[in-house]
Order: sequence, then C-alpha cells, then structure tokens
Amino acid sequence: MKKIINNCENIVSEMSEGLVNSSENLELIHGYNTIIRKDISEKVGLISGGGSGHEPAHGGFVGYGMLDAACNGEIFTSPTPDQILSAIKAVDRRKGVLLIIKNYQGDLMNFEMAAEIATSQGISVSSVIVNDDIGIEEKANRRGIAGTIFVHKIAGAAAEKGGDLENIKKIALKVIDNVRSMGVALSSCVVPKIGKPSFSLNENEIELGIGIHGEKGILRSKIVSADEISEIILNKILSDLTVKSGDQIATIVNGLGGTPLMELLIVNRKVNKYFKNLKVSIYKQYVGNYMTSLEMAGCSISVLKIDDELKQLLDFPVKTVCFS
Amino acid sequence: MKKIINNCENIVSEMSEGLVNSSENLELIHGYNTIIRKDISEKVGLISGGGSGHEPAHGGFVGYGMLDAACNGEIFTSPTPDQILSAIKAVDRRKGVLLIIKNYQGDLMNFEMAAEIATSQGISVSSVIVNDDIGIEEKANRRGIAGTIFVHKIAGAAAEKGGDLENIKKIALKVIDNVRSMGVALSSCVVPKIGKPSFSLNENEIELGIGIHGEKGILRSKIVSADEISEIILNKILSDLTVKSGDQIATIVNGLGGTPLMELLIVNRKVNKYFKNLKVSIYKQYVGNYMTSLEMAGCSISVLKIDDELKQLLDFPVKTVCFS
Repeated sequence: MKKIINNCENIVSEMSEGLVNSSENLELIHGYNTIIRKDISEKVGLISGGGSGHEPAHGGFVGYGMLDAACNGEIFTSPTPDQILSAIKAVDRRKGVLLIIKNYQGDLMNFEMAAEIATSQGISVSSVIVNDDIGIEEKANRRGIAGTIFVHKIAGAAAEKGGDLENIKKIALKVIDNVRSMGVALSSCVVPKIGKPSFSLNENEIELGIGIHGEKGILRSKIVSADEISEIILNKILSDLTVKSGDQIATIVNGLGGTPLMELLIVNRKVNKYFKNLKVSIYKQYVGNYMTSLEMAGCSISVLKIDDELKQLLDFPVKTVCFS
Repeated sequence: MKKIINNCENIVSEMSEGLVNSSENLELIHGYNTIIRKDISEKVGLISGGGSGHEPAHGGFVGYGMLDAACNGEIFTSPTPDQILSAIKAVDRRKGVLLIIKNYQGDLMNFEMAAEIATSQGISVSSVIVNDDIGIEEKANRRGIAGTIFVHKIAGAAAEKGGDLENIKKIALKVIDNVRSMGVALSSCVVPKIGKPSFSLNENEIELGIGIHGEKGILRSKIVSADEISEIILNKILSDLTVKSGDQIATIVNGLGGTPLMELLIVNRKVNKYFKNLKVSIYKQYVGNYMTSLEMAGCSISVLKIDDELKQLLDFPVKTVCFS
C-alpha cells in the first residue's frame, strides 16, 4: 500500500484539518472531525456526512448555498450519533435542521438516533435519504452516491433563500425522486487500515454498478470503450428514470479518485451525444471528482431531471471549497 | 493498460469536445484542439497550452479572469506552430497577445515560431517562460509545472483589469520570479499510445523532483510519511526562494491525477504547520488536481511569495470550468 499519509489512525483528523486550513470560512467542531461553516445565517440548517474516503464529499461542499456542516466518520464508517448531534446543535438557528443521509445502514441508524435525541431536546429535525444508485435493483436497498451532490446543491440553495424546514425537505425529496446514478470501477481502492485491495479485477476487467465502498456491482465485463461504458450506464439510468424528448436534465460525470479528468471528459462527450440524440437538453453539467472511493479508478454518471424550480436553485450562487 | 477511452488517436479531440460541452462560454477553434472563450473583451489576449495529459491544465482555466485560449497538443507533445498561430489570431483584439509557455524545448520552439509569424503579420506578441520546477538544479533547464497556474491566474486578472501588453508581461514575470514548485511520484503514468508505464517504482518507493511527464527526479527513496515528504519538498523550495518571517505566500498542493483529495489535504495540513512555524502567513491556498500527469499518483507543492499587488490580482474574480 503506497499512500501519502502519516499513520492510519489520524487520516481523518489530519485531512479534516487540511481542509479547514484551506478556507477562512471553515472550522472544526471541537472534538469531532466535523467541518462547519462560520457564516450560517438565520435559516434552516443542512447537514450531511458519512464515512470518509469520498472527498471532496462532504466537507468540500460546506459553505454558502450548500451544506452547513459535514460529519466525517472514519474511513467508510458512519459518523457517530454524538458527533451528528453536536453538528445539529451547532447549525441550529431555531429554523430547524435537515439531515441529508445516504442510504447505508450505519448512516441511517446513527443519523436517525441523533435526530431523535435532538428532537427530544426541542430542536426541529427532519431527514431525507438519498438512494440514487441504480446499481441495485430493489429501490429500498439502493445506495446514495454522487447524485447526492445535487441534493446538497439544490436544498442548500433553497435553504439560503429562506424556505422553511418542510419546504426544504420537499425540495430535497423532489431531487431524490428525479436523480439516478451508476458507477463503474477499473480498479479497487485500498482501505488504509486493511492495507489490501477491497476486491480484485483482472487486467482487462471492469465492474459496472459498483458501490463507492467497492460493493459488488451488477456486471463484470472485459473493458470496453468509453462510449460503450457510458451508453451501458445511461441506458440503465433511463430504464429507471423517464426522460423524454424536450425534457431538461443536469448531469455529473464523477471521478472515483484515481481516474484523471481526461477520461471523465471523454465520458462527458458521450453523455452529450447520447442526450442530443434523444433531444434532451443538458441544462448544467459537472465533470470532476465529487464523490470518490479513495484512489479507486473509475467513474459514475448521475442524471437529474429538472424543471424551472430546480433550474433556479441549481443556478443559485454557491461558495464552497470544492463546488462552484 | 486500463483506461476509459475510445481509441488512442482521438483522445485529445474527444476530451477537448467533452470540456467545451461542459460550458456555454467555451468553444473549439475549428480544425484544432484549442479551447477558446467566447467572451473575450477588448484586452490583452492570454494564451497557454502544451501537451495534453495535464488536465485541467490548460483548457479548464480558459475563461473570465484567466486564459483566453489553451492549445492542446497531443499527449505530452507540444501544440503545433499553426495551431498556436490560429489561437493568437483568434484572441487578438489589437491590444497584443501574451503567450505563457512552460519551459520545454518543444513548447518553446513552437510557441516562439508562432509568435514570430504573428509578429510578421502585424500582431503584437510577447511571451514568458515558466520554470518553477526546482526538481532541476540549473535554472535554465527548470521545467514549468503547477506554479504555472499562478501565472495564468494573476496575469489573467491583470489583463482583465485592462493593463497593456508590457504591463501584463511584467506582472507575469514577477510571478515567475517568485514561484517555486516540486513534485513527488508514487507511481508512473501510462501514455496511451505506448501502453506501458513510463518508468517503474518498487512497491515501497517514491521519486522526488519528478517531472510532469515522468522525467527523472532528484531522489528515489523508500516511501516516508506525508509530513516528511512535504518537509523535504518545502525545504528544497525554500533553499531557492527566500521567504522569511512576516512574508505572505500563496500555495498549491496539486494532485498528479491518481492521488485522491484525502491525501492532498493531509499534505496541505503539513504545509500550514510548516509555514506557521516560520511565521509566514498563507494568504491563499489551493488544494486539488490542477496540473496532472495522466493517472500518475503523487503530488506537487507550489509556493508563491506575494505582495499587495499580487494579492489583489489573486483576489480578482475568475470564471473558468476548473478554477474558481
């Protein structure tokens, strides 16, 4: 295992510190690896988080127009209930707090436990569960992956504009209803404490539908072209999300950590050709590393169907370290 | 070789297309893989470029407050003189054009040939040569690496503010005088047409001072901690750039393509500690993939000594796909 780290124990605290160093508007919640912004106004608070190893998710998205706090758990491990509770208290401005949770058992359990305690202490807390990963057939089991960024962006804009908790939750659920993603891996990542690849792929093999922790996908195949990979993913997404001629969408071509931008741009080209063919217009498109899996090589594509309300919120200004 | 591409011949044209797709303000110069912005005002034109494989350099930095055009050569190969000439003509607004060239023989030759032809056709063209890489001892041979981003940013701001060609060149040279960088690689990249790693490192080995095309560095060693790697690089930089207590600097922790943000943030933490110790304040710090080497694992650190003039230009607004 070759990584630029100091020791396995301190990775999350050191990278959290390195992120907070990089912006005058960020700080850590004392005693926790939670990134919080300093300039939270009188508005609904937005918190996300999860296991670390997905940087820039979620700390890189803390700031004006997006998240108020991001709870970093240990690598691929949920943040603890007391960590989440302290974040809820820190962002609460008596307008309520929305938790944006990716659909993983540990996250669900801990975020919901924190919400219960906060509620019992008089704070209004709601939550939404993101499950955009169609690499899993059964809807209840679908994981939250890069499509979550759209929930952060759009709910963040709505909160900044002054909506109430119920309204922000409704907007977040609308995004969740309309976003689908799927990924592909070319190589495994290595969880530092384990020191070995989480899975192995042959020299010519890729895995489609893989999860962001290396969870098993739906198909292993010989590597095919960027255009074919993109088409398989997009066909699968459109088998689950109705998008027809005249519709507008927003897209993310997301790198998993070890894949260079060059390759993501080649995928983005195909995404554009694909939707042009369908006469579907891409209103906004993002290409880059947004939700990674340590140094895994591969990417995911996310598609969000949008209307005028979502377009306005996508256009709302945002000021974070890693999303602009 | 496992990459998300279609075929080796079309990589540069396809990724250029994918980049232009992602922004309404970008287009290609017909017949060339040159990224140009649509909204160039009456100002000095700024052009950079070089071999591809360093994305987001340079196309991701085309836009308001930064570059007007970026000429993408084939992978690790200079753009051609006619390609550069067409870019000069396209950005020229009769205020002159500045070429920002990284110090590589092929780039120098082709950019300067294009400049000569353009000059003979009545266009005012100047150029600056970036040589921030102190992985090479002799100043004349030093390569241009991630410190080049500071030249783009600061000269770009000065041009947008309306300076004349001589003035913009002076500012660019001031940045070049005050910026130093050095990199470290944990793994090689694979040039697609070659299909094999450019060099090989043992399982426990790193190479310090490596170039962004895999050029030989100054030291191979067993992998050491992130803090030690950072300290070796920063000590080397400060052996060449005088920075003393009370000075202000800007820094870039730049990923080489295959290294996740998590590791770059851990390096950034050490950069902050290092300069805090020296009572040198970091005015602005950037962490991310800015000038990569395909999927090479590793990073570089750049340090720019700044004064009030450079600070103001660093703060000037910028609107590009990959720098904000």
